[in-house]
Amino acid sequence: MNAYQAVAPVSGKTVSARISPAGGLDILSRNEVARLRDASGSGLHALLRRCALAVLTSGNLSDDPGTIFEQYPNFDIQVLQEDRGIKIELKNAPDQAFVDGRIIRGINELLVAVVRDIVYVAAQLESGGFDLDDTVGITHAVFEILRNARMMRPQVDPNLVVCWGGHSINRDEYEYTKRVGYQLGLRGMDICTGCGPGAMKGPMKGATIAHAKQRRRNNRYIGITEPGIIAAESPNPIVNNLVIMPDIEKRLEAFVRLGHGIIVFPGGVGTAEEILYMLGILLHPDNQGRPFPLIFTGPRASAAYFEQIDRFLRLALGDEVAKYYQIIVDDPAAVAHAMVAGIDKVRNHRLDNKDAFFFNWALNIPLAFQRPFRPTHEAMAALALHRGRPRHELAADLRRAFSGIVAGNVKEEGVRAIEQNGPFVIDGEADIMRALDDLLKAFVVQHRMKLPGGSAYEPCYVVRTA
Amino acid sequence: MNAYQAVAPVSGKTVSARISPAGGLDILSRNEVARLRDASGSGLHALLRRCALAVLTSGNLSDDPGTIFEQYPNFDIQVLQEDRGIKIELKNAPDQAFVDGRIIRGINELLVAVVRDIVYVAAQLESGGFDLDDTVGITHAVFEILRNARMMRPQVDPNLVVCWGGHSINRDEYEYTKRVGYQLGLRGMDICTGCGPGAMKGPMKGATIAHAKQRRRNNRYIGITEPGIIAAESPNPIVNNLVIMPDIEKRLEAFVRLGHGIIVFPGGVGTAEEILYMLGILLHPDNQGRPFPLIFTGPRASAAYFEQIDRFLRLALGDEVAKYYQIIVDDPAAVAHAMVAGIDKVRNHRLDNKDAFFFNWALNIPLAFQRPFRPTHEAMAALALHRGRPRHELAADLRRAFSGIVAGNVKEEGVRAIEQNGPFVIDGEADIMRALDDLLKAFVVQHRMKLPGGSAYEPCYVVRTA
Amino acid sequence: MNAYQAVAPVSGKTVSARISPAGGLDILSRNEVARLRDASGSGLHALLRRCALAVLTSGNLSDDPGTIFEQYPNFDIQVLQEDRGIKIELKNAPDQAFVDGRIIRGINELLVAVVRDIVYVAAQLESGGFDLDDTVGITHAVFEILRNARMMRPQVDPNLVVCWGGHSINRDEYEYTKRVGYQLGLRGMDICTGCGPGAMKGPMKGATIAHAKQRRRNNRYIGITEPGIIAAESPNPIVNNLVIMPDIEKRLEAFVRLGHGIIVFPGGVGTAEEILYMLGILLHPDNQGRPFPLIFTGPRASAAYFEQIDRFLRLALGDEVAKYYQIIVDDPAAVAHAMVAGIDKVRNHRLDNKDAFFFNWALNIPLAFQRPFRPTHEAMAALALHRGRPRHELAADLRRAFSGIVAGNVKEEGVRAIEQNGPFVIDGEADIMRALDDLLKAFVVQHRMKLPGGSAYEPCYVVRTA
Amino acid sequence: MNAYQAVAPVSGKTVSARISPAGGLDILSRNEVARLRDASGSGLHALLRRCALAVLTSGNLSDDPGTIFEQYPNFDIQVLQEDRGIKIELKNAPDQAFVDGRIIRGINELLVAVVRDIVYVAAQLESGGFDLDDTVGITHAVFEILRNARMMRPQVDPNLVVCWGGHSINRDEYEYTKRVGYQLGLRGMDICTGCGPGAMKGPMKGATIAHAKQRRRNNRYIGITEPGIIAAESPNPIVNNLVIMPDIEKRLEAFVRLGHGIIVFPGGVGTAEEILYMLGILLHPDNQGRPFPLIFTGPRASAAYFEQIDRFLRLALGDEVAKYYQIIVDDPAAVAHAMVAGIDKVRNHRLDNKDAFFFNWALNIPLAFQRPFRPTHEAMAALALHRGRPRHELAADLRRAFSGIVAGNVKEEGVRAIEQNGPFVIDGEADIMRALDDLLKAFVVQHRMKLPGGSAYEPCYVVRTA
Repeated sequence: MNAYQAVAPVSGKTVSARISPAGGLDILSRNEVARLRDASGSGLHALLRRCALAVLTSGNLSDDPGTIFEQYPNFDIQVLQEDRGIKIELKNAPDQAFVDGRIIRGINELLVAVVRDIVYVAAQLESGGFDLDDTVGITHAVFEILRNARMMRPQVDPNLVVCWGGHSINRDEYEYTKRVGYQLGLRGMDICTGCGPGAMKGPMKGATIAHAKQRRRNNRYIGITEPGIIAAESPNPIVNNLVIMPDIEKRLEAFVRLGHGIIVFPGGVGTAEEILYMLGILLHPDNQGRPFPLIFTGPRASAAYFEQIDRFLRLALGDEVAKYYQIIVDDPAAVAHAMVAGIDKVRNHRLDNKDAFFFNWALNIPLAFQRPFRPTHEAMAALALHRGRPRHELAADLRRAFSGIVAGNVKEEGVRAIEQNGPFVIDGEADIMRALDDLLKAFVVQHRMKLPGGSAYEPCYVVRTA
Repeated sequence: MNAYQAVAPVSGKTVSARISPAGGLDILSRNEVARLRDASGSGLHALLRRCALAVLTSGNLSDDPGTIFEQYPNFDIQVLQEDRGIKIELKNAPDQAFVDGRIIRGINELLVAVVRDIVYVAAQLESGGFDLDDTVGITHAVFEILRNARMMRPQVDPNLVVCWGGHSINRDEYEYTKRVGYQLGLRGMDICTGCGPGAMKGPMKGATIAHAKQRRRNNRYIGITEPGIIAAESPNPIVNNLVIMPDIEKRLEAFVRLGHGIIVFPGGVGTAEEILYMLGILLHPDNQGRPFPLIFTGPRASAAYFEQIDRFLRLALGDEVAKYYQIIVDDPAAVAHAMVAGIDKVRNHRLDNKDAFFFNWALNIPLAFQRPFRPTHEAMAALALHRGRPRHELAADLRRAFSGIVAGNVKEEGVRAIEQNGPFVIDGEADIMRALDDLLKAFVVQHRMKLPGGSAYEPCYVVRTA
Repeated sequence: MNAYQAVAPVSGKTVSARISPAGGLDILSRNEVARLRDASGSGLHALLRRCALAVLTSGNLSDDPGTIFEQYPNFDIQVLQEDRGIKIELKNAPDQAFVDGRIIRGINELLVAVVRDIVYVAAQLESGGFDLDDTVGITHAVFEILRNARMMRPQVDPNLVVCWGGHSINRDEYEYTKRVGYQLGLRGMDICTGCGPGAMKGPMKGATIAHAKQRRRNNRYIGITEPGIIAAESPNPIVNNLVIMPDIEKRLEAFVRLGHGIIVFPGGVGTAEEILYMLGILLHPDNQGRPFPLIFTGPRASAAYFEQIDRFLRLALGDEVAKYYQIIVDDPAAVAHAMVAGIDKVRNHRLDNKDAFFFNWALNIPLAFQRPFRPTHEAMAALALHRGRPRHELAADLRRAFSGIVAGNVKEEGVRAIEQNGPFVIDGEADIMRALDDLLKAFVVQHRMKLPGGSAYEPCYVVRTA
Repeated sequence: MNAYQAVAPVSGKTVSARISPAGGLDILSRNEVARLRDASGSGLHALLRRCALAVLTSGNLSDDPGTIFEQYPNFDIQVLQEDRGIKIELKNAPDQAFVDGRIIRGINELLVAVVRDIVYVAAQLESGGFDLDDTVGITHAVFEILRNARMMRPQVDPNLVVCWGGHSINRDEYEYTKRVGYQLGLRGMDICTGCGPGAMKGPMKGATIAHAKQRRRNNRYIGITEPGIIAAESPNPIVNNLVIMPDIEKRLEAFVRLGHGIIVFPGGVGTAEEILYMLGILLHPDNQGRPFPLIFTGPRASAAYFEQIDRFLRLALGDEVAKYYQIIVDDPAAVAHAMVAGIDKVRNHRLDNKDAFFFNWALNIPLAFQRPFRPTHEAMAALALHRGRPRHELAADLRRAFSGIVAGNVKEEGVRAIEQNGPFVIDGEADIMRALDDLLKAFVVQHRMKLPGGSAYEPCYVVRTA
């Protein structure tokens, strides 16, 4: 617990207020105002209420989203039309979002983002504005959602660093993410994360202090989330640009298209999934020669995490995979140096190719990475985890394997499947399987598999190592 | 000729340049860039070239658009994709738009507006984004075009004064429009006109000086035009918000929805048409009780113009029509006072009704005023110009009568129809016809019917007065 | 009379108001507030009242300052201490400075400048803060007054063009000054003049329109005046930086130290004096090699003016003097080109010499040009107008000759001396005297010697031509 | 050690660089540039070097200023004249002030403040600009130094909270100061401290995060220091307004005149001195009825500190003294509430009395509090610590007693005096002496008397308790 969280304990106290939306909902047509107002009453209402509550309880410590809804059972949100625009009516909202009865400006902005994105996506889906069946259409939808959310800034040199990593890392790792954010901030980098605690908050806090020291204004602390995780990883109000993508795959694509480089901090099996996602794309033949800085880093005590990842990646995908990432141990300034240098290459490459700075149109993200993977027992068993296929396809299936384990660990659907049918069986080429098993066991030992409850970890998978 | 026009004579000299668009075309998707680029090569190209040339010859003295195209026969415009966005390539462009080879910033912005609006409207029409068959759909299209052009500003108190009047008024009248603009500017009003010379330029110039004296920034000099007249009434670069509406009716609706009050200066038969348009709307039963300041004004020497208009309006529509407008002779400060007071009522009315300040949603503009009138001999003969019908319907037909005369005077289609079939015959209730005939004759005497050529006026109509 | 002057006729109507000073008097010590308040009651009061009234009647047409004071005999100004700062209390002030009872913002700022400068100079003189006995001390005082008035802007490239010329030029010449100002404004130049009508207003108005077209903000329209002429040449409120120098010599030095180049428009004998002042400095041996663009220009019809000046200068000071100036006839764009090129040389020269951009420290202005010349009959007779001395010293005495004629024409002291003792006798080398006589006669013929009254000109001098 | 300090360890590595001063040294006269340049070579040089080094080692952990100078023995600073202004040349400067060879912008600004204030004060003292012999003159000097440093902001409502307290408090207390700063920041308060570690840094960091969440810009983090302590309490670069007052008394006066309220966190005997300083002023009869919020606060575990202080104050100065302060234990939000309410009273009082918001002119600070106390054995023995005198005079002598102990503990002069003559003897009314003795003993027990070395505390005083 740090000073600021302590300030806003889950008190259960509530506030009801009618607030004027801060920015972003200014010039609306009558139709749009009506649609927003109706959203409160339609099928979107549950989604709106859920996301709004997440934003209002920002900074909460609980890992279990369920508890939030239990604590504020009477919370409600309505969008009203009033003179000159709209108002947002909150009932029985958590009082931690308010200061002396007035909503914190940053939280107001996040609330506006929630309303804006949910209604925009719903309207586009309804009107057929998005074509989600092919790769071009999906990328187009990602672009439109980001533009509608004003996530892109023209005339700005590439400087957006995406930070990935676990949301429940230890104190040592958390402090390290702050130090890296601080070094990035000193060098004028902006930060983009999944917005939540841990590795998603530390870099932003560090950068905030560095930006203040450098007297830098117009900083961007971008959070990209999706309805399924926003409750568990509620955005810190330092986030001053929030977008809610419709699902995990579009969220991942948004990171990759918006960011100019990625730093991965230690995390769990979810972080491993993200690494495989990124490497799968970078390994694709179409993407060769396109610079994309990717750095794995952590404090000294966490060095083992990336050593194991590295060993596994080399074994499964060949030593050459290591040329796509850089591992830096316990040296925030070196991380910042490497990222700045990498982004400089990105900048020059885009200039040479007359590409936009604000969106990475050129990167080929195959449909396999855009379409969601539904981790059934059959799908898990069907993964082709052997070397006799293009490396980026193997990477795609390895990502699916990790994705399945995440689901089996914590997602409602996955947990139920495990309860009914026993653990997923993961099979494939023998040495890859052994390496995978070792990696997963190491995660358990390092407490990176921990569940909400905190009890000993019971694996949801069996890796066929022989 | 004044000092600034002298600066930019129609020299016929040309410049070719590749320019970076100033504002407004920042964050484009690949599709949009492609569409812009393609516009140069498609059916939109002629339209684009025509409007661009009008903007580039801003301040030209000729009343005859044809001459411009003759003078710059090799002018061309292409939209190119370059790094980080688009470029506009101009070939053999009039050198008056440039200073030492660099395009004047204000003209650059107008050029961007031209490209933006032409492509946006075309894309919406193509994709079925607009429903132009009913009154709600048309209003919605007007709103969307204005929003896409960023014409509306949130959180700003009503202060937008629309100025109408002739584009070839005499020097005395022109100076008067400057003085009125100056008085409006001193009181913090912004100006919206059809952007062209005469009564459309004077108020903006006057307001510019007043705004400078009041140290007012963020001033808006809004020009609303349409492809058919932009060449004849090319926007002065003082205009810092330009929008090109698809046709005359949407342009008129844009004036009425955006503006918070209207001032009418002397003009010709076109100005009479505008007056009837506005009064037809204000007379509609649905619009009773909605404040809308409408002021007719001119210098002492032009007092007769509005006396005649007033007499005609009262005779045709009843004395009560005069409650919808106010005539002020030769007193710019009084005009400004009356307008400020009128807009204050608009402000309070919108607050009471929770209406937006930036768009007059509440005003009912019947479909009859939204749909274009095509002035054939049949249509002109079919006008029902008698008192046995609702006044707003009679006003609508009177407007059509004036509209037909404008077309018969100067528009290609109308002129040809007259050549083939002789003058339009306008018939109706006897005293209205006599009054109309008197009014039109007065216009002739006052040189308000003048044609490009300058020869004696040969009427394109016959009013049946007996 | 143009549109804006018409707006503010000398109506004699008055307004009394208590106004909050706009900018520049923010953080004052108790002592300073007391000093300002006391100024209203002290010996400074007459000066304060006089200058304030000039500012409040800005745009008046009368050439005779006396009339202003007659028209507003009950005008008074007091500085009051109120919460959080000071207020300025105006009694019976000309109503033309107000819009609906509220003072025009630009006039408010000019009023603040008047109060600020009068009190600052008085305080410095009283406390011995200025050393006015030597050249370094005078220059230092000029710098301090300008800095206190925030006239200098750091980090800005040289772009300040000083415009000199007559305040009662003809319409043709006035329009020409606007066109030159327009061309300068298009090229990003700022304007500095003596602030008054004629050649001092035209360039600012032209530049205002050009700056608007170029969307240029943060424009500077600097007016430099002194108590003796402010009433006759009251600052137009386009002036957004006004400073009141203590006397004519410091005003001239301020022009030369602040400006990066000078344009001279046609004027009378006063303009001739300014030309000799500038050339006297540029001819000084210490100033050789320092670039300083000096351009004489006017419309076609006024070409004779500069031909005669040129002829006289060459005859008196040698043909080589012509290398210090450039004459451009009827070509505003060429004037702007030449000035921009000249200022570019100034910029490079200062960079090479590590000189400030905002103040021309390096130029040597000899004490002879800094000390006021009191034109008595003895002093005029004692001028050494012959070639047997350094050219810059001859130029200094020629300037004194013109200065004496100005005084004999219009200044109270000079006029009285002429009444008592007859015309000044100007003697010197024969051909110089003949040339001087021709020049002065030409001024008479061209109506450039006109007096407030407008009667035929009766020379206040006799040039000994034989 | 926290994340950011770790980033900048005292590495001993150095950088030499020529930097452009950031803000504040823009428009200088030739004289001023020369004076700055000469400062490097004059008697001011040692002072300049010392303060500059403190600023450059900001964030260092050492409590012992001596070590800094030992670590950077070759550090030097020179002010140079270059084109368009001055440059600051640093030789062998600590590399922690730089990021990739470029100085951190915030540190650049602090460096400029150091140069500015040292030279300004020296110039004023030299020229006789300050009259330091009477109370009005001293206050005037304080005002002028603050104004020259642009510390005051006009047109801003009172919102400046001064935070006092120890610079080497424990972790728990430090986190608490952050939480209080956070609550103040959420409510739009700006922070002013002595700029150093501990209680002087925590509130600024907390407020920085809160200001970011509230999207508040133009925040002020004011540091007020003086040459004697700047090395020990080097300003954190979050400080964006730094002023170096000439001595401790003027620094204390600056806090009281600038701030609108004061919060005291736990500290040592120095904090006790500050409390007595403030109470001595508030107890003065002239200051009755002037609101001045004064709050003592700390975390639960530190409650004893203020209980003891409170007990001592009541005993020595009477129970009524407690009405001048408020004690709040472990409740940051309550502290912020109380401060906001108190400042609201200050605001209304100043409005009622037409007092400036930016400087507390009205408060009477007697000369006794403005003149430095030199703690010799005689002076300490001469303190009149008994109740038979006005309370504010007794408070003044009590303050002197604490001041003497501070000096005897850590200041060079005081330590030497103790070494030579043994401990100070403090005598006075018996029960006050006992209470004082108890208080000091408690400080020892709570480790609030700790010395740089860290050894057991050997008192430098003897309190005569019988």
